[in-house]
Amino acid sequence: MLEREMHFMEMTIALARQGMDEGMGGPFGAIVVKGDEIIGQSCNKVTSTNDPTAHAEVLAIREACRKIGSFQLSGCEIYTSCEPCPMCLGAIYWARPDRVYYASTREDAAAICFDDSLIYDEIMKPPASRRIPMQQIGHAAAWKVFEAWRNKEDKISY
Amino acid sequence: MLEREMHFMEMTIALARQGMDEGMGGPFGAIVVKGDEIIGQSCNKVTSTNDPTAHAEVLAIREACRKIGSFQLSGCEIYTSCEPCPMCLGAIYWARPDRVYYASTREDAAAICFDDSLIYDEIMKPPASRRIPMQQIGHAAAWKVFEAWRNKEDKISY
Repeated sequence: MLEREMHFMEMTIALARQGMDEGMGGPFGAIVVKGDEIIGQSCNKVTSTNDPTAHAEVLAIREACRKIGSFQLSGCEIYTSCEPCPMCLGAIYWARPDRVYYASTREDAAAICFDDSLIYDEIMKPPASRRIPMQQIGHAAAWKVFEAWRNKEDKISY
Repeated sequence: MLEREMHFMEMTIALARQGMDEGMGGPFGAIVVKGDEIIGQSCNKVTSTNDPTAHAEVLAIREACRKIGSFQLSGCEIYTSCEPCPMCLGAIYWARPDRVYYASTREDAAAICFDDSLIYDEIMKPPASRRIPMQQIGHAAAWKVFEAWRNKEDKISY
């Protein structure tokens, strides 16, 4: 039962360990599978590339999209060694794969001092109540651009 | 009042309009400011680069981090023409700037058919109840990697 999926998850966890051992970043890995082919894979590379967005899922999604020449991953599965943080969960929703498999949880991540759980809590607060202060300015001017988008005839929606 | 901040926001909104007019992607822009210097800026480039993670905030954060050679944006402000989606909000928390200014809201984005508001709703659901099915497998093996991280002496935390 779930033998195929466990095979891909074991590879994902091995990626996480390898990335950690090689000093690429945190102990996380992700793989994108289409049919039975791996079309994207990465470990976390935040600290080795000075890129706070270089989580395993984001990098694996970007590689898979480059490979198939599309910004959509319909028909794909994503394997990740840990429950996606809000950034990666957002990236997954924008990429729209069919299914996600994860191993560790946000609570496990918190137990080894990663902020995933804190960010989940912050996201549910109104912008003005968050730890990083968020203030709205310039609303009227910004809305004019949205109206122009709504009326644009040659736009590519996503 | 807020004259300096409105100046940067006007530039951010101009970036959003320019990116839309040039067919780069959706009508969004973002700028990272340190002191009074712009150290990162981008419009949305999802459809022109086939990268679902190429939101304005993510690209501006990545550029700013490359420029200063750090995965942290302490001492910086981020201006974004729209309330960050969960992916970008997560990216902001990982980058840890001092403050965020936004113009349009997630409801405005929903009104022109972007999924921001839907993703906010999905994030608050338990993984198994989401529109994109999310299933936990391989927990024990993944936890061993987290334990190894906890015991690793030469790690760089983030």
